Amino acid sequence: MRKVAFLGVGQTKVDEHWDKSLRELGGEAAFAAMTEAGLDRVEALFVGNMLSPLIDGQNQLGVLLSDWTGLWGQEAVKVEAACGSGAAALRAGMMAVASGELDTVLVLGLEKMTDRAGHDVTSALATAADADYEADQGVSFVGINALVMRRYMHEFGWKHTDFAPFSINAHANALHNPYARLQFTISVREFENSSMVATPINLLDASPIGDGAAAAVLVPADKVNGLDGRPRIVLAASAAATDTIAVHSRRDPLFLQAAYTSARRAYEMAGVDPQEIDLFELHDAFSIMAALSIEACGFAERGQGPRLGLDHEIHPGGRLPICTRGGLKARGHPVGATGMYQVVEAVQQLRGGCGETQVENARVAMTQNIGGSGATVLTHILKVD
Amino acid sequence: MRKVAFLGVGQTKVDEHWDKSLRELGGEAAFAAMTEAGLDRVEALFVGNMLSPLIDGQNQLGVLLSDWTGLWGQEAVKVEAACGSGAAALRAGMMAVASGELDTVLVLGLEKMTDRAGHDVTSALATAADADYEADQGVSFVGINALVMRRYMHEFGWKHTDFAPFSINAHANALHNPYARLQFTISVREFENSSMVATPINLLDASPIGDGAAAAVLVPADKVNGLDGRPRIVLAASAAATDTIAVHSRRDPLFLQAAYTSARRAYEMAGVDPQEIDLFELHDAFSIMAALSIEACGFAERGQGPRLGLDHEIHPGGRLPICTRGGLKARGHPVGATGMYQVVEAVQQLRGGCGETQVENARVAMTQNIGGSGATVLTHILKVD
Repeated sequence: MRKVAFLGVGQTKVDEHWDKSLRELGGEAAFAAMTEAGLDRVEALFVGNMLSPLIDGQNQLGVLLSDWTGLWGQEAVKVEAACGSGAAALRAGMMAVASGELDTVLVLGLEKMTDRAGHDVTSALATAADADYEADQGVSFVGINALVMRRYMHEFGWKHTDFAPFSINAHANALHNPYARLQFTISVREFENSSMVATPINLLDASPIGDGAAAAVLVPADKVNGLDGRPRIVLAASAAATDTIAVHSRRDPLFLQAAYTSARRAYEMAGVDPQEIDLFELHDAFSIMAALSIEACGFAERGQGPRLGLDHEIHPGGRLPICTRGGLKARGHPVGATGMYQVVEAVQQLRGGCGETQVENARVAMTQNIGGSGATVLTHILKVD
Repeated sequence: MRKVAFLGVGQTKVDEHWDKSLRELGGEAAFAAMTEAGLDRVEALFVGNMLSPLIDGQNQLGVLLSDWTGLWGQEAVKVEAACGSGAAALRAGMMAVASGELDTVLVLGLEKMTDRAGHDVTSALATAADADYEADQGVSFVGINALVMRRYMHEFGWKHTDFAPFSINAHANALHNPYARLQFTISVREFENSSMVATPINLLDASPIGDGAAAAVLVPADKVNGLDGRPRIVLAASAAATDTIAVHSRRDPLFLQAAYTSARRAYEMAGVDPQEIDLFELHDAFSIMAALSIEACGFAERGQGPRLGLDHEIHPGGRLPICTRGGLKARGHPVGATGMYQVVEAVQQLRGGCGETQVENARVAMTQNIGGSGATVLTHILKVD
């Protein structure tokens, strides 16, 4: 297998982009990444997206975007793993380059969610769950996460307010990210008094939806030279794993087995231990998911995820900086695009360009993107090479 | 890149499977392929599907099927390129094995379409077209193909009846395929008198929808031994290309540029000329698409596709056998599964197990799967090795 490197990245602000069509939104991030890479053409396009058939009445996002971005004739395809679609597209693109089949690949995470009313989006998001045994029984996606959070609090003795540091950290970091949807800070009091969504998950436990696109150009590492002084960043590990799709089928619904498996594979592939990870862009769709990811990836004991936040270890100067650009919670969660936002943000950190939220001497970054309630999990490790 | 071989294939009958859920239907083909491969576990699952979010309210078919088939923990993802999803999943799975990243991959094409009323399916299929500039203007997917067929007849002087041999051949072959949906023959008179769908496309120009699943296990070719006397079949070429998504954007709407490009790449990769292809499983969603594919792939001059049928060259004993197991027209077209049916049928031919419709001494088979109206095209060449 050939080593794969990043030649350019790009993103749009996560927002309500009512003035842009699906292709215009995706094109913005694609052009930004290609411009930074110094290419006006790539051999193939891999698009990660979850909801466009349901929200936009559009399938075949591969060719929709290859057509729009002027990649006429080139190979293009869409990859879908619910909210893990972005990282799943990255992994497919990585394998295409690693195999020697392709030399220049553009990976694009793209989602446009705000053109429809809230209940339409809630129904569309429920397609990430098991249609027969979860969604059709009337439980929404946030409802499933609420059941998990309630049980976790009961089992390990946490209060709701113990999860506040996750959301407070995310918002504090988003304040300095011009691409974030929610660029404001929040307090513990605001966290506690926020309106309830599905007990115990309130509005400030939950990530906001949004329209967004993020992209990266991948090439064989040995073809990268002349990055204008920027460090060469390689994809040191890519790993995917699954759990059962329905949460109730799991032996232990409070442990993210697929996150554990994919993180273990990624550590092995990259040749690093958890303590060597300089920052971790995790999948905090809900605050409970931040806690569970931290535990599954070996950064805390079972049931002790919230401790890292309470001990002030998750901010950019802490032991395990997470959500350094705002995370899903405050940068926003345009579902199929999220995995690629995480990767673009990891690249920004490894280049040292994150200003107030820069992690000092960051050399190794991990991203973890989750489809469904821990059903499909993809872990990537990026390194300055 | 490592050479990739088929270790086992499996399929379900294309039909109205109202008694089977989406996972049960996919599981049937997956288990059949794994049983034939002699494996009870593979490292990863690639699912090709187009409509499950719209018809079944289910996304994340990767983990839905890895969960159902007992591949707990393993990597799983869905690939989508409208009606080209099956072959797009095959190509993603091929690259995963070729790269050395994975050693055993199951590729599954799966679609369940008949649980909803006809107008729901028509709307869902329109998501293969350009939502902004085709579907939202009120033209259905068959309508787009009808415009192309009418212009083709005008431009090259063909009558509707000249397309009859495509459908007659497909039905004649499906009669001998127990997995085909329409196992009966049709006459020229029936073809001419069939009810109109969208002028000039009538019911017997059009492939029927259906529920179906087809699967294959891929492994590195050097790990294949002991196939109980069956020949070793390798994936000698895999190529993908795109055109514009909307037909009206094309310089020439009567030429399948992406079919031409991907076929040319495939010939080069496999080291064969068009005349060395022993059989061609093409994408006859409509009879006009059969003619255009034959031309784009170099088997007939521009505008002369129907000639091969009129000259009796497309049946299993002819110069270019097509649709040897019934094609989309008579085996049926469960859209996201179709590309994998074509591949399973090509494997059956190369093994010599097709009875009355066996192509004698078949050594090289080509499959071509199309997403949208020629927007995404994937061409694969299989060889007895």
